[in-house]
Amino acid sequence: MSLSESDPTGLHRVLDAAVVLPQAAARLDTRRDLWPDEVRIRVERLNLDAASYRQLERKHAGDGERVRAEVLEIVTTRGKMQNPETGSGGMLVGTVEEVGSKSPLGLAVGDHVATLVSLTLTPLVIEDGLARWDGRSEQVPCDGYAVLFGRSIAAVIPDDLPTELSLSVMDVCGAPALTARVVGEYDGPTVAVIGGGGKSGSLSLAAAREAGARHLIGVVPHEHEAEALRAAGLADEVVVADARNPVELRDAVAKAGGPADVTVVCVDVPGCEGGAILCTADRGTVVFFSMATSFAAAALGAEGLAADVTMIVGNGYVPGHAAYAMELLRSNHGVRTLFESRLH
Amino acid sequence: MSLSESDPTGLHRVLDAAVVLPQAAARLDTRRDLWPDEVRIRVERLNLDAASYRQLERKHAGDGERVRAEVLEIVTTRGKMQNPETGSGGMLVGTVEEVGSKSPLGLAVGDHVATLVSLTLTPLVIEDGLARWDGRSEQVPCDGYAVLFGRSIAAVIPDDLPTELSLSVMDVCGAPALTARVVGEYDGPTVAVIGGGGKSGSLSLAAAREAGARHLIGVVPHEHEAEALRAAGLADEVVVADARNPVELRDAVAKAGGPADVTVVCVDVPGCEGGAILCTADRGTVVFFSMATSFAAAALGAEGLAADVTMIVGNGYVPGHAAYAMELLRSNHGVRTLFESRLH
Repeated sequence: MSLSESDPTGLHRVLDAAVVLPQAAARLDTRRDLWPDEVRIRVERLNLDAASYRQLERKHAGDGERVRAEVLEIVTTRGKMQNPETGSGGMLVGTVEEVGSKSPLGLAVGDHVATLVSLTLTPLVIEDGLARWDGRSEQVPCDGYAVLFGRSIAAVIPDDLPTELSLSVMDVCGAPALTARVVGEYDGPTVAVIGGGGKSGSLSLAAAREAGARHLIGVVPHEHEAEALRAAGLADEVVVADARNPVELRDAVAKAGGPADVTVVCVDVPGCEGGAILCTADRGTVVFFSMATSFAAAALGAEGLAADVTMIVGNGYVPGHAAYAMELLRSNHGVRTLFESRLH
Repeated sequence: MSLSESDPTGLHRVLDAAVVLPQAAARLDTRRDLWPDEVRIRVERLNLDAASYRQLERKHAGDGERVRAEVLEIVTTRGKMQNPETGSGGMLVGTVEEVGSKSPLGLAVGDHVATLVSLTLTPLVIEDGLARWDGRSEQVPCDGYAVLFGRSIAAVIPDDLPTELSLSVMDVCGAPALTARVVGEYDGPTVAVIGGGGKSGSLSLAAAREAGARHLIGVVPHEHEAEALRAAGLADEVVVADARNPVELRDAVAKAGGPADVTVVCVDVPGCEGGAILCTADRGTVVFFSMATSFAAAALGAEGLAADVTMIVGNGYVPGHAAYAMELLRSNHGVRTLFESRLH
């Protein structure tokens, strides 16, 4: 490919010798000029991925100056914010500064947006040395610019909601959209959401209801979370169980009206694959949104249990996912209450 | 649960203090007497998982005596054959010795069977000290017994085919059954099988054809494998591409008639997630059968590419999978030729 042509995946900005996608690249080209299908964003804030920020904080024993210095060095060296230890990035908030003539993203100059693709594949230049950041929080005030590709995703931040609240919803917006799609493939199914009290879990419960679930089971790890979820009214039954204990989870879901036709896993702890499989009915579907999911544990677990279940890798992208999640937040009082209680 | 009751998952034979499934257990109860839903097999051969055998061979520098001693020690200590390093097991061949009064497996005393659940969760007692095994091959002649649970799976070995050939098919029989199911959900789809020349790949191509694929693309890593696959006549187009290079794979599949509505990944090397996603059409499905698949690479990769694809964890169990794979072998000359060439 000639350098004058762009690729919707951003391949034309990879500076590595080997052919790799931007996410896998060591270094990206951060030139300011746009290829025709690109968009440039004036950045106002970076939200570092929680795992990445915690690693940096630990490494530098909470010394904010050194955390800031390392973030600056990573971005300068790599042309993107990707923590070399955790491999993760985060997202950013900013304003559209320029739109290439062939951009398919539907954005206009001046739009206030959040990027829904990871910082790990987004060309980024920091221009203020992060002078307004003390290095002590994953919220990073920042002046600089970032580039979106033809296949990137950004969502306009609504005017009618607090920005914090919108970002908190957008962060997990893939889960409710995919849950709705899967639930819609069944006829009045029973749906269990493991981790139903969390951000992606509560949105998934609301989405499952909208998509036609007949019986909704929310599983949470502690009684106080159960109370909050019961008060929110998102599930027909709320049960307390340790999702890492397969038999406890199976029995809890069975008692609450299971097995489930669709099981949605939203808890970020390892070892939940067996339980999720066991609480799912024959010909049911398990959707794994947890990044702690082990592919081998899921594949071998289902085989070892002779479980005829479809297991889906929770893809964070479904067209229209951000708008759909915002709609759920606006229309569902229970969801909104749970999200707002988390921000205070 | 009282010990006198059995659980279809085999939980009643777990000797660990914590509640874990048999696969995760340190030690299983190998008592000879059966619970009512169990089946006992007289073992004639263990097939150790290749990764497990290679690890033992390396550790003991090819000394067969020491490899044998360690396998005996593992089985005696754990009550099952699960390599503590690799975590993997294998399968076994034997004859049904006793069937519990409530066994749902449909087996009869005297049936010659292969277990299709892993040795990692199968209670096993070796009674001949592995005297007929020199420790220099993953095929282990063995006298002893093993126990199957209510939810285990075993397949009767056909009389009309060489046992080696049958076992070689059963080893990968989940792939064609699940491929057929997914392909059947589309109307005359284009299907790409990455690693189409291998065991699971060639069976998946044959299954996709039977299930109504309109255009079949086989992707292989080398020209000599391409020739064998072309000669077998299982695909409409056979292309050579490195599946770890996402752009090369995307472009190769596009040129061969892609993108694919269904992409089946059958190559056991890491790093194929991005390419598989990129060669799949919008609203298409990727089925990952490779144990080298990374859950995070698949989830973040699809999100980073804004790819609206369904990604399925290749569950090795689909009801009737062994019989279906054997039928494909019997009826499809190309599949049989590829399998037989591998045994010689």
